[in-house]
This record gives sequence, C-alpha cells and structure tokens, in this order.
Amino acid sequence: MIGYNAPQRVNTHRAKHAMSKPTKDSRPTPRLPRGLRDIEAAELRQQQDMLAKIRAVYELYGFEPLETPAFEYTDALGKFLPDQDRPNAGVFSFQDSNEVRGKAVPEARGEKDAEEWMSLRYDLTAPLARYVAQNYQDMPKPFRRYAVGPVWRNEKPGPGRFRQFTQFDADTVGASSVAADAELCMLAADTLEALGVPRDQYVIKVNSRKVLDGVLDSARVTGQMDRLAVLRHIDKLDRLGWRAVELLLGKGRTDESGDHTKGVGLDQSAIDEIANFVGVEEIGVSSARGLGDAATLANVQMRIAGSDGGLTGAEELRMMSALIEAAGYNGRIRIDPSIVRGLEYYTGPVFEAELTAPIKDDKGQPIRLGAVVSGGRYDGLVERFTGEKVPATGISIGVSRLLFGLQRLGKYKDSAVAGPVVVLVLDRDRIANYQTMAQALRQAGIRAELYLGESGMKAQMKYADRRGAPCAVIQGGDEKAKGEVQIKDLILGATLTSIEDREDYLKKQAEAQFAVKEADLVDAVRKVLSRHKS
Amino acid sequence: MIGYNAPQRVNTHRAKHAMSKPTKDSRPTPRLPRGLRDIEAAELRQQQDMLAKIRAVYELYGFEPLETPAFEYTDALGKFLPDQDRPNAGVFSFQDSNEVRGKAVPEARGEKDAEEWMSLRYDLTAPLARYVAQNYQDMPKPFRRYAVGPVWRNEKPGPGRFRQFTQFDADTVGASSVAADAELCMLAADTLEALGVPRDQYVIKVNSRKVLDGVLDSARVTGQMDRLAVLRHIDKLDRLGWRAVELLLGKGRTDESGDHTKGVGLDQSAIDEIANFVGVEEIGVSSARGLGDAATLANVQMRIAGSDGGLTGAEELRMMSALIEAAGYNGRIRIDPSIVRGLEYYTGPVFEAELTAPIKDDKGQPIRLGAVVSGGRYDGLVERFTGEKVPATGISIGVSRLLFGLQRLGKYKDSAVAGPVVVLVLDRDRIANYQTMAQALRQAGIRAELYLGESGMKAQMKYADRRGAPCAVIQGGDEKAKGEVQIKDLILGATLTSIEDREDYLKKQAEAQFAVKEADLVDAVRKVLSRHKS
Repeated sequence: MIGYNAPQRVNTHRAKHAMSKPTKDSRPTPRLPRGLRDIEAAELRQQQDMLAKIRAVYELYGFEPLETPAFEYTDALGKFLPDQDRPNAGVFSFQDSNEVRGKAVPEARGEKDAEEWMSLRYDLTAPLARYVAQNYQDMPKPFRRYAVGPVWRNEKPGPGRFRQFTQFDADTVGASSVAADAELCMLAADTLEALGVPRDQYVIKVNSRKVLDGVLDSARVTGQMDRLAVLRHIDKLDRLGWRAVELLLGKGRTDESGDHTKGVGLDQSAIDEIANFVGVEEIGVSSARGLGDAATLANVQMRIAGSDGGLTGAEELRMMSALIEAAGYNGRIRIDPSIVRGLEYYTGPVFEAELTAPIKDDKGQPIRLGAVVSGGRYDGLVERFTGEKVPATGISIGVSRLLFGLQRLGKYKDSAVAGPVVVLVLDRDRIANYQTMAQALRQAGIRAELYLGESGMKAQMKYADRRGAPCAVIQGGDEKAKGEVQIKDLILGATLTSIEDREDYLKKQAEAQFAVKEADLVDAVRKVLSRHKS
Repeated sequence: MIGYNAPQRVNTHRAKHAMSKPTKDSRPTPRLPRGLRDIEAAELRQQQDMLAKIRAVYELYGFEPLETPAFEYTDALGKFLPDQDRPNAGVFSFQDSNEVRGKAVPEARGEKDAEEWMSLRYDLTAPLARYVAQNYQDMPKPFRRYAVGPVWRNEKPGPGRFRQFTQFDADTVGASSVAADAELCMLAADTLEALGVPRDQYVIKVNSRKVLDGVLDSARVTGQMDRLAVLRHIDKLDRLGWRAVELLLGKGRTDESGDHTKGVGLDQSAIDEIANFVGVEEIGVSSARGLGDAATLANVQMRIAGSDGGLTGAEELRMMSALIEAAGYNGRIRIDPSIVRGLEYYTGPVFEAELTAPIKDDKGQPIRLGAVVSGGRYDGLVERFTGEKVPATGISIGVSRLLFGLQRLGKYKDSAVAGPVVVLVLDRDRIANYQTMAQALRQAGIRAELYLGESGMKAQMKYADRRGAPCAVIQGGDEKAKGEVQIKDLILGATLTSIEDREDYLKKQAEAQFAVKEADLVDAVRKVLSRHKS
C-alpha cells in the first residue's frame, strides 16, 4: 500500500538554494530530497511502542521475523506497482558498479556484473517471494513470516505521500486454503484492537480479484493490461473522485498540471456496469453489498453469473465468511465489493482495513485516511522464479498512516518517556564532580544528563525546562563548602505562580527547592520523581 | 565503522545464472546482490533483544531518538569514507528523476531537479550533520541524539564485509568540552556491560586526531591528503599487516588480485617514527603507551613536543583521563596511541571499544573481531553547511559485529521465543472448528498456529516438530464424537525413547499424550507449557 504520513514537514518542493551546484568553494545547502522527512523523538517513541504491540500480536499467531536487504536485483523485484504509466517509473534504481556516476570502466576492473540493475524495494512482498524461491526446500511449510522496515517509491510526493515509509507485514506462504486469508484478516483485527482501536471503530473489508475479474468479464473488458488498468483506476476513486476515474476508464484524462493519462477506452455501458458493482457514493450508486455477507454474496453471484472464475472467487469468499463467523469476527470483517487493490500480483481474496471513527485535521476538517492495513493473495509471485506454484497471502500495515490515525483518535497523546534530570555546571573547574553526580543518578536507573554547554546558570535552567527535566541538581561554591546540593523540582516550581495563599506558597516553595547532603542526592531525586509519577 | 558480520551466507560471488539477462520468456533467478544477506528469525530475535538493551542505556544518558531517511542528496552527505582510492566509490548513488534508466526526459516533464544526485547514507553521522544544520535554531543545545538503522557501502564484499549493515549511534552536538567525549566512552562501557560483557572482557581505547597530527608533524608529513592517506593506511594494520602498510606508506603496493595502490611516498625514517608511535606488535615495536594513562601521556607529550596542535590534543586527553578516573571508569577506558580512525571528518578525541576475551570461529581458530564500538569528535561537519562552528562527538555500535562477538562469548545461545502450539487439521471439512481452537489459545495469550497446509497427519506432526512446538492439539473423528481433544506434549514425547524402565515409560507416555474435554483445551495446554518453563 501507499503510505500515509502526517502532512507536516514533508519537503515537496526543492530547497531554496538546491539549484546551485555545490563547488569546492561553496557550501552545500542542508536539505532533504523531496518527499523524504526526518522523524523526531516524540513520534519515534510512539512508533516504537506501536511496532512492539504489532510484533506481539504477529508472534502470538506464530509468525516468525525475517529481514531482507533494502535493495534487490531489479529483475528479482519485478514490476508490480500501481501508478506506473511510464516504464521503469516507481522505483529507485542504480547499477551494481563502483563507478555508477558516468565514468564506469567495469571491463577494465574485471567486474562483469557492473551492468546489473538494482532497485530499492517498493514493498516487503516482492523480496519475500525472492527469499522463498531461494530457500523453499529448507523452510517449514506453510511458512508464516513477518517483516518490518522502510520501503521506497519513486513517485511524485505530496501532502501525505512520502517517498520512504515503513510497512509491517505478515504473510503466509505455502497455504492455498482461504483459511490462511481469513486468519490474516483476524490478525489485522486483533492487531488494531491491541493498538487501542475499539471494536466498533474499524472494519476490515474483503473482496476477491477473481470476483472483480468476473465483473470485467461481464463488462467485456478483455486484454490483461486493460483489465489491470481498470482496477488501478477504480482504486483511485477515493483520491481522484468519480469524474476523473470515469474519464480514465473512458477516453482519457488531463489533470490540473496538464499531464495527460490515456484512457482504457471502455464504452459507457461497461463503465456503468463496473460502477454498479463497486458502487460510487458521490453519484449515489450503491455497490453490490447487501446487509450481511450472505446477502452480499447473493448479489455478487447474480452479477457475475456468467463468469466461472468469478463464481470460484465468490465461493472462496463464502468459505472465508464462514470461517470468520465461526471465530466470532463477523461484522468487523465483512465482504465488500467496493474493495479494489491496484497491485498487479493479487490473484484471490484482497483485504483493506479502515478506521471508521471520523478523523479530522488540525483545523477540524475531516480527513479521508484510507486503508491502514491492506493485503491479499498472490499465488503467482514465487512461481515467477521457480515455475512451481507456491500459494501465498499477506497483509501490510502502513505504519505512519496508522500512527497518524491513532494520534487523531487520541490513542497517543504525549511521549511516555520523561525528560532527564539535569545536573547543572556552575563551576567549570569541578566538572568531574558534576559528572560523578550524573553517573550516580544513572547507576540508580534514573535518566540523567550533565549540562555540557558553555552557558551560564540562567541558560542552563532554560535548557532543563526545554528538556522536560523533572528536576535540576545545582551545586554552587556555597553548597560545595557545606557538602550539599540543591534539588529544584521544576514541575512543582512551575505551579508556584498560580498559588495565591502566602503560607501555601511558602510551603510549596520550600518543597520545590531544597538542599540535601551530597550523599543523599540519589534518594532526594527519587523523592521528587515519585511526587510526579502518574 | 565498517560492519562485521557473521561470515556465513554472505553472497560474495554472483549466483549461478545471474549472467543470463531475464527476457520476457525466461524466469529471473532468485538471488541477492553480492554483499547482501537475509537475516532469519533466530538472529533477528537476538538482534531485537540487543537493540532494546542498547536503547535503554542511551535513554538513561538522556539521548533522544531521531530517524533520518535512507538517502540524502550526495552533496549533503559529503565524501568522508575511508578506502576510497577512486572518486565516487564507496556509496550507492542515483538521480532524482522518474526515468533514471537511460530514458530520462526531465525537461519535457518540467522536472528541473532530475540531475540532482542522491546517495544511500554510508553512516548515521553525515545525515545528523545535515539535520543539525537544518534545524539548529530550534533544538535544545547541547543536543544528544541516538539513531539506529542500516547504512550502505558500495565496496568489495568479502567474508565479514557486507554492503548493508546496522549501526546504533549516540552523538552529542553543541558541546566542545571533552566531558562530552568522556561521557560517550562511559556510555559505551555501560552499554557493553548491559549486554552482558563482564568488566574485564572489554576495553575502550582513546586517542586523538590532534595528537596523531602532531606525530605527522614530527615525521614531516605535509599536505592534507597525504596526512589522511597515512592515517587510513595505518588504520588497516590489523587487516593487512605491517608489511602491506609499510609499502602503502612508502612506494606503493600491489595486492594478490593485482590491484595496485599508490604509496604515500614517505622515507623510511618517517615511517619508523610513525611505527614507533602507534606500535607494530608483529615486528615487536611497542607504541607510546605506558603503564596507566599518566605514563602514556608523558610518552605522548615527549614524542610530539614540537607540535602545538599535538600538545593541545594531549592536554585534552589528560582532561578526559581525569574525568574518566573521577567517574571510576579508568582501566576500562584508557589512552592508547595505537588507535587511528580512518574517517576524514574526525578532529579531536577518537575511540574504539574491543572485546578482549579470545573469540574463535566454528573451527576453534581465533578471530580478530576488531572494534565493536567506535567514534570520535568531528567539529567541522556542521560548519560544512553553515559556516558556523558547531562542535560534535559521537559513537557508533556495529550491531552485527557486536552480536557476533556476544554469540561467540556465549551471551546469546538460543532464541528466547518458544515455538507455537500447533493445532492439527485432520478433518478438512471441520477447519472452522480447528481455527476456533487456535483462536481460543491466542486469546489466552498462548502462541498458537493452525496447520494451514494440505498434508496428512504424519507430515503435520513433522511440521510441529520443525516449528519447535511445545505441544500439538489433535482432534480426529473419534475425539470429536466424544467432545474431546488430544494434547500431545512434544518435548516430553521426545524423551520417551530414552526411558528404559517399563512402568516409568508407561507413566510418562500417559503424561505425554492425553485427552481432555474441548472446553478444557486452554487449561490443558497451559499445564503442558508450565511443565517446560525454564
């Protein structure tokens, strides 16, 4: 799936000075390539927490971790991306050569593979297929594996569309039974609930590539490329709206930037038949979905009655639905004819999970978040290498998009990690003393920092505030002479100004800053920390 | 640092069929680009455990996480890699264009930055410098950040030399005091101990680029490029041996593969002076190191008496040594003139941590593991962008190399995660029943799998063994009729053949496989699991 990311900070335009070619005498501009972003502490800690929870559920289901490298030979990855109207677009590619930048002399160096192209992975599924093809004999079958890591798309960036994003996948290889597909949908449901999404605030929608192929049969769309193009265009309905998709299915479309995309050339009756199956909310056309899976499946079977492949797909959906109901996941997981995944490699059931609670941006405007989990069956991806059928199915969580959704739903408010205790440095000659205090705190398991800058007391206190320090440790010459340190409770201290009663103020003030013997430093800091344990 | 990795499974040669260019009719060969590897479950779980422990110590010291993207504009990364005798070598680079593979028509598409080069990061330090230059105004200063992630080197792979490896870095930006360097060395020590390395089985060695520059002054090596080349060649002493390094410092060297590297052209007296400072064990030449930091520093000062810069470096080392001693880390962290880091960007103290316990390969042969942590001060890296001095220093853990060392020292023996309980599928029509059993176990927090393949009972039991299942859940038609399930304890079962006493055998056999009511499934499985809790 395409990752959704919080729209702030994305570099969609070129940095101001990026055009000036850096020379030996000019300085480079610090800037990120467009569509990339840095992830800072608060979000990263939330992401860590999220990944740990996802991992725990995947492990519970028996999936085993696997890590493949960031790039692969281009031919091993294959080209299965949606949104590729031009050849070779979509991925970042480079050559396996020591001199890729125009001066390659591979023959002279005896490097015969200098012309082999490599590409950064665009998902975690294609590398899994390569791994399975390479190691099939040695693995337990079926093989359940999970993987988490960045993937890259060489696409036009925009708000919410980054060129690097993290996916967390679970796949089952070697199982042709739709029980594997049903299990993955349940895994997705359990994962969302483990992340704090209530049972009534998400839905997992299931459809089938075989059923969609049956619809295309009915609409007399022939030719593999046309069929794929139709699915990809319909998959853009959420993003582009029906008018644009209708043009893409028909005579073609020119977008705002003037880019023209060739249409598939369907006639209006075929377009209508497709619209009637997947449904188009904005023009009031309902999909083939009924009330409950049984009704939906009856509708679906009626519409694709002439297609054997389509009926096989509908029968598979019926079996999935039965398994899902037996396990008590019906309602949360349901058959939905509107789901169309644009990836070429799907061959059977396809799934998408959505958050159903309304999500708003900072200005209160509703946001269409899109799928937070997506996946499907891809029985041909290993066969590509080996010629032998190896059935496979999987799901992928778009980590940043889901995190954004969870943040918006109030699941992640503040960072769970408290700021460090800051030990100030008032007398620079005694830095070894101060450092020993910081080490004593750390050795007691208390997060602590020595102030390492050059500034004075006031700036150091500001630094401690900035770091979210619960307290500061201060020792000037007077305290040193008495063998003492001052402990300043910054959280309590911040509340002082709002106290109106004088006695109360003086009492709180005395609690907020007090002196202790050097030897009692750790205990005193512990006492302050325990005041603020929530 | 260059990552060390366990030598098994590295793809150093081209796969058998990799030469044949895939056409539409031929299948691609499943293979990895040379120098890359897959990391499977057992190692990955150990790595996860290791990263969590490192993160906890970094957090304790007040460092904050940051994640930058995998690639940056090439000019923003700069070229500071060692081992670059050719221009543009060392990194993987590509252009920011939608059509990088020879058919670029950027002007026609209005993409003016199509010619901008980007490179995969070769370490986590250069991206940090870019981040700091870009965000300096908004960050608390000093700024402590940690980062973990893969880095890539476009170098010749070999056993233990991969082209993708993971680093775990901690850096302090905006602190010119050597207290920051001393703190990082203590952080490295605490991290190694948190990973189970006893205090007497590691050492952190500290030297200074300024001191080494002083030695080069004494040896009359002038010219910045020559000086850097000398340091890089000396840094290869461990790997290449003295004879090779001596040639590289002098008239040049041709290696076994016939590659010739130009020498720096020093005369023998200069080479000897350098050898006498850093020490060359294999020819019996000791370094300037004495017994304890005070003696070492006296030696160092004597050798570089004529170099002001060198003496400044020695004074900084003296201050670091005092801080380290005050905090009780002396001995574990010590001044060592033999340490030479080959990265161009270092400007002050440099450090390396080594495991001192002997490490052997599978055949019992000793392995020279090299540095497991390395780092140093790089005061010029942010200035490159902004023109303003921003002091900085950091350490980097080579994750795979350190994990390999820890494995060899017996710190990581087996995977901590137990195999899942496997629910067999004997009657395929009742798969919904079996799935409900697996879900019931999972909902009770028990790792469980439904067998999803097509094979019979015997193969399913083999699968359960292969997965390391503690027990299997079995329900054939007879059990179903009685409303029961069979629980088979596979761990106990495996010990039965070694029991000679008949009564004991029968008793254990009854414990190893028994029937329970369907409703008691979860409790019965819990009972079996509790038998094997270690």
